[in-house]
Amino acid sequence: MPHPLNPALAATFSPPVMEARRWLEGVTFSPERPLINVSQAAPVDPPPEALRQAIAEAALSDPQAHLYGPVLGMLGLRSELAAQWSAAYGGEIAASQVAITQGCNQAFCAAMATLAGTGDEVILPTPWYFNHKMWLDMAGVQTVPLATGAGLLPDPDEAAALITPRTRAIVLVSPNNPGGAEYPAELIRAFAELARTHRIALIVDETYRDFDSRSGAPHDLFADPDWAEYFIHLYSFSKAYRLTGHRVGAIVAGTDRLAEIEKFLDTVAICPSQLGQIAALWGMRNLRQWVAGERAEILARRAAMEAAFADLEGWDLMGCGAYFAYVTHSDPRPSAEFAQALVREAGVLMLPGTMFMPEGAPGAARQMRIAFANVDADGITTLRARLAELARA
Amino acid sequence: MPHPLNPALAATFSPPVMEARRWLEGVTFSPERPLINVSQAAPVDPPPEALRQAIAEAALSDPQAHLYGPVLGMLGLRSELAAQWSAAYGGEIAASQVAITQGCNQAFCAAMATLAGTGDEVILPTPWYFNHKMWLDMAGVQTVPLATGAGLLPDPDEAAALITPRTRAIVLVSPNNPGGAEYPAELIRAFAELARTHRIALIVDETYRDFDSRSGAPHDLFADPDWAEYFIHLYSFSKAYRLTGHRVGAIVAGTDRLAEIEKFLDTVAICPSQLGQIAALWGMRNLRQWVAGERAEILARRAAMEAAFADLEGWDLMGCGAYFAYVTHSDPRPSAEFAQALVREAGVLMLPGTMFMPEGAPGAARQMRIAFANVDADGITTLRARLAELARA
Repeated sequence: MPHPLNPALAATFSPPVMEARRWLEGVTFSPERPLINVSQAAPVDPPPEALRQAIAEAALSDPQAHLYGPVLGMLGLRSELAAQWSAAYGGEIAASQVAITQGCNQAFCAAMATLAGTGDEVILPTPWYFNHKMWLDMAGVQTVPLATGAGLLPDPDEAAALITPRTRAIVLVSPNNPGGAEYPAELIRAFAELARTHRIALIVDETYRDFDSRSGAPHDLFADPDWAEYFIHLYSFSKAYRLTGHRVGAIVAGTDRLAEIEKFLDTVAICPSQLGQIAALWGMRNLRQWVAGERAEILARRAAMEAAFADLEGWDLMGCGAYFAYVTHSDPRPSAEFAQALVREAGVLMLPGTMFMPEGAPGAARQMRIAFANVDADGITTLRARLAELARA
Repeated sequence: MPHPLNPALAATFSPPVMEARRWLEGVTFSPERPLINVSQAAPVDPPPEALRQAIAEAALSDPQAHLYGPVLGMLGLRSELAAQWSAAYGGEIAASQVAITQGCNQAFCAAMATLAGTGDEVILPTPWYFNHKMWLDMAGVQTVPLATGAGLLPDPDEAAALITPRTRAIVLVSPNNPGGAEYPAELIRAFAELARTHRIALIVDETYRDFDSRSGAPHDLFADPDWAEYFIHLYSFSKAYRLTGHRVGAIVAGTDRLAEIEKFLDTVAICPSQLGQIAALWGMRNLRQWVAGERAEILARRAAMEAAFADLEGWDLMGCGAYFAYVTHSDPRPSAEFAQALVREAGVLMLPGTMFMPEGAPGAARQMRIAFANVDADGITTLRARLAELARA
């Protein structure tokens, strides 16, 4: 351990995706039986060529693409998102209520920094997104886990029972990472009412909104003219336009909160990457049809996952949607050990449920997350075959 | 004020550069008398064309340029920095001791997060770099100001007297922002000994190292095989290669500390911008001569500043180096008010000393920072003429 060391840093865990990568060290995979990597929610192909050309063109001929921009992001991108979201959600969102961040993880950190400090409490449904838990740990904020029920959905009444005078926020992720659940609009509305009543914030991380299987707005929160009093929306441009390496996300919040968020972003980021913002804006203006095709492909993969696991002995789907299936397995080994064994025994890398749950949580040792977005229908057939073969071995 | 609000966020100030930009609203500047903006330490021209072409080429033909990379950065860039720094500083730095960040501000936040939490103390010489102060405020860390003496240099003995059981680090910036001072190698060594003895960390932010007027290594800390026990080095690629809009910086620290830093960066960044890293690596490999020319130009501007202020009545240089002059003025108005008046009365935007000092610090109301890096010799002549004219008015 280095000295001095902030105990809040020491108290949190190492990045799960980086840890899982280390399980691959020393394991070889033949060309006939390559690794099936379902550990990370990330596109593996670059953006469409026209978007790559737009980035290259900006790099060559737009001097501003290389220089500092405003802390809260490029006005054109903030305006475009405000306009598209106003239409999609049936509400009024102004450009001044949008901030661009270096990815959606940073959007969460920035929003949360304005809400909660050491000793405060934040409610996260379980299984949770591990980077949310890590940030709360590092900020000295107490994470209050909210166990989910059928369909991995959280219950607002159970959440209400967890609220204390130190509670500052409830965080939902919909469609959910890692659970795949698409939260019903009425459920999100019920959580919003809870937040409003208790004068705490509701954060909804909608990183996977572009892959929601439902049509229409996923919730009606923006339709309330007073949404900014209790609601904070987070978004990522990474998935829709395959821009993970550019780090572009967004926050939609009240302007008075954005003034506080600006302090955090000025200090941690100064500004988001200009080329990433240029790419995101070009994508929003030109790739609507292309994203619709991407969504159709993800929904087809989701259907293939559901079919593949319907009669796969020893495995059960607890949730399946967006990029993720969250499953139970029947291997006698606990999931953290089983996940490492799967690399050697089946050539499959997935993350164990323990990475998404409080220590010692019941069930976590039997659970796994499968990030299937990168695996096409044939790949899912192969994945199923390998897991079936393992069960027989 | 939004509710709920983390009081640590409310306690810090708004981004000074963004605040200063607002002073320009409603003021018009004629083509014959354009604004002279010396408020921000940032290149205003894009990188050289060959570097822009390298970025465009990567955007078009390198799929990895658009996808997630390792949390601690691209191995090639980490290795290149380790090799060049080992040679430049006469020490042993391994690639595994280098992390790439989304800019040097983030490098500071990430390193500091591993050192200090709520209630801890960190010593900053004054005038300080405002984003350092803002991060400490937002993290609930107590900033302990260390007044500087002649040449704006801090005194290690005075620092020693400020160390308490809660002290976690001392932060130096050399060449200094905002003061322009180039700290002598022996002074930095004395601070390192102080840190080592007290088992605290010494952070040296060397964002402006490429514009140091001295030849040779600016300090010998890396020559100690045990440097990683007490020393953390920060760097920015933004200034040398004009990449401010790409957000690329670096941390050099012990591998055990980088394992803690990786938790922070995974959560706040996931990874640095890939195109920014590609650009920084290309710059390190190909632009050594070009950067030498940039340095010569900055040194020429520094000389022009010193000449211009040598006999400018009412103005005195306290420090001048790298991108900055730190000056006193004799206007009867306090600097915060005078800085706003200068926009209207002289068409000059500079930041008041109050933005770099603790509230109520003696002298701050008479001090200003002039970020002269963007102003050529003719521009400095014009700046001097406008200030002289104002004094006569």
